[in-house]
Amino acid sequence: MPRILAIDIGGTRMRAGAFDGELLTQEVLATEVERGPEDVIKRLIQASQEVLRKVGWEKIDGIGMAVPGPLDRVKKTINSPPNMPGWDNIPIGEIFEEEFSAPAFIDNDANAAALGEAVYGAGKGASVVTYFTVSTGIGGGCVIKGHIFHGAGDNAAEFGHQKLDPFGPPCGCGGRGCLEALASGTAIAKKAKELLIHNPQSLLWQIVRGDIEKVSAKYVAQAASQGDALSLRVFQEAGFWLGLGIANIINLFNPKVVILGGGVINAGELILKPAREIAFQKAIPQLASIVEITPAQFGELPGLYGAGEVALQGLRGELDIL
Amino acid sequence: MPRILAIDIGGTRMRAGAFDGELLTQEVLATEVERGPEDVIKRLIQASQEVLRKVGWEKIDGIGMAVPGPLDRVKKTINSPPNMPGWDNIPIGEIFEEEFSAPAFIDNDANAAALGEAVYGAGKGASVVTYFTVSTGIGGGCVIKGHIFHGAGDNAAEFGHQKLDPFGPPCGCGGRGCLEALASGTAIAKKAKELLIHNPQSLLWQIVRGDIEKVSAKYVAQAASQGDALSLRVFQEAGFWLGLGIANIINLFNPKVVILGGGVINAGELILKPAREIAFQKAIPQLASIVEITPAQFGELPGLYGAGEVALQGLRGELDIL
Repeated sequence: MPRILAIDIGGTRMRAGAFDGELLTQEVLATEVERGPEDVIKRLIQASQEVLRKVGWEKIDGIGMAVPGPLDRVKKTINSPPNMPGWDNIPIGEIFEEEFSAPAFIDNDANAAALGEAVYGAGKGASVVTYFTVSTGIGGGCVIKGHIFHGAGDNAAEFGHQKLDPFGPPCGCGGRGCLEALASGTAIAKKAKELLIHNPQSLLWQIVRGDIEKVSAKYVAQAASQGDALSLRVFQEAGFWLGLGIANIINLFNPKVVILGGGVINAGELILKPAREIAFQKAIPQLASIVEITPAQFGELPGLYGAGEVALQGLRGELDIL
Repeated sequence: MPRILAIDIGGTRMRAGAFDGELLTQEVLATEVERGPEDVIKRLIQASQEVLRKVGWEKIDGIGMAVPGPLDRVKKTINSPPNMPGWDNIPIGEIFEEEFSAPAFIDNDANAAALGEAVYGAGKGASVVTYFTVSTGIGGGCVIKGHIFHGAGDNAAEFGHQKLDPFGPPCGCGGRGCLEALASGTAIAKKAKELLIHNPQSLLWQIVRGDIEKVSAKYVAQAASQGDALSLRVFQEAGFWLGLGIANIINLFNPKVVILGGGVINAGELILKPAREIAFQKAIPQLASIVEITPAQFGELPGLYGAGEVALQGLRGELDIL
């Protein structure tokens, strides 16, 4: 099996791992994007060297990288992701190729996570796997027979930007009523804040110590798990919309497995229960009958598995099958 | 090039054609489903023999069949389509295989139409093509690099059953606010009827000679093209929802071409104009910028081209790539 350096760069954390079909070891560090690309990349290279030292690989066969989009898979560049100011046209692939003398293959974080879960995790063995990452925003990925479906312009599976309510709240994409504007961490926090103003007795006030600006999906989940009615309602609603979005993805992609990852899914049954119920209720029965809706198996690691698999497929010349 | 007998069975009309990468000749006949499978199949076989006689093929290499779903592609059976009562578990593939001594390959009408348009028609050369058939209902198909995307259970691309409005009208699938319940021929006729009751001056009354039960999407289009305000409004609304549905498909499948076929699209700009406007306005700009939205090139024939291509791919063993 080829020896792969797997890299996963996120806005908050980044990881380097040694991968050969299994994740042998990894290093995790804070990205600290504000220190700029040069500093971040320098630290990531050091972490990568540490990883290779740990497994005793003096030479590697390939590098797989999961990075925030937009990106250019051919030029292997990161092109100004919204959450990484200053990362304009950064030739991340070339930099690592020169440093480690091996070919690099890159893809976006949601696609890589989808691939990691589809091939090694919760979707193992399934022919069609769809993956939702429910976090600050909502991203998606679709893996068909082990390969990422990229679409004609490398932007397929924008699951967060399906329109579910033409009169719904405005979305960052410029539209209205997108799933992301209804069920993302940002949407959950926003909705909770709106309701909080009229609910002085909510436990959420205590949790954020009276500072409404501190309200986040995580705190709303905490309050909900302690029985706070307002917070339970917010998760119930977010779960409804997520379920509707999942129903659409079932009707459109006819997946065997729908995998839910991202920070918001850490809220567990608070969001999974209503989402599953609505999805199974709203999807076409025949399609609903074959699908499993499940949380991600690798938690925060699917990107690293996916990055490794991207490199394996790249070395086999299989990246452009779909 | 292999010699293919291409078959397209619809609820109203059926066709047989001689196909070798081009459609050399065809026969069209009324299906008359009420005469039962045996009679229908007998007439279709006669038409097929006539087609082969016309092109002088004494032997064929394969048979491609586009049939209404649900169906079983492996067993090559038609399994009780809603618009073909009595067609329960009909081994249409085997019957033709025995009759014409060649292997048969079948797929559903929407997939076949999508494939025909993608490979030979309006989507020629595009890597990802999505096809809407807007008729009594709304069906869909997605073709990736020349192959039908079937999904895990052979039911992918149910474009008519994306939920666009959680409080929208009920749909035949048991859900609410599906695209099919908002923009199909049936939905257009239903909406026109609702409005007609309160609009005694509408031209549509004259067109249906005072019989509201005669209202169909075709008559609404006729009235709209003559400037009838009510009918124009109905098409404007249907176009809005179709546009929203197209925007979702753009955001989810990132196609190069969206092809619109089916009887309702015969209304031309009445529905195409609002649909295009809304789709381009609502889809993510980067994805909208690479997509073309276009009517089908083959009118009512894409199914025959698609059936032919299904057989060609079947003979090459390529049907299960996706």
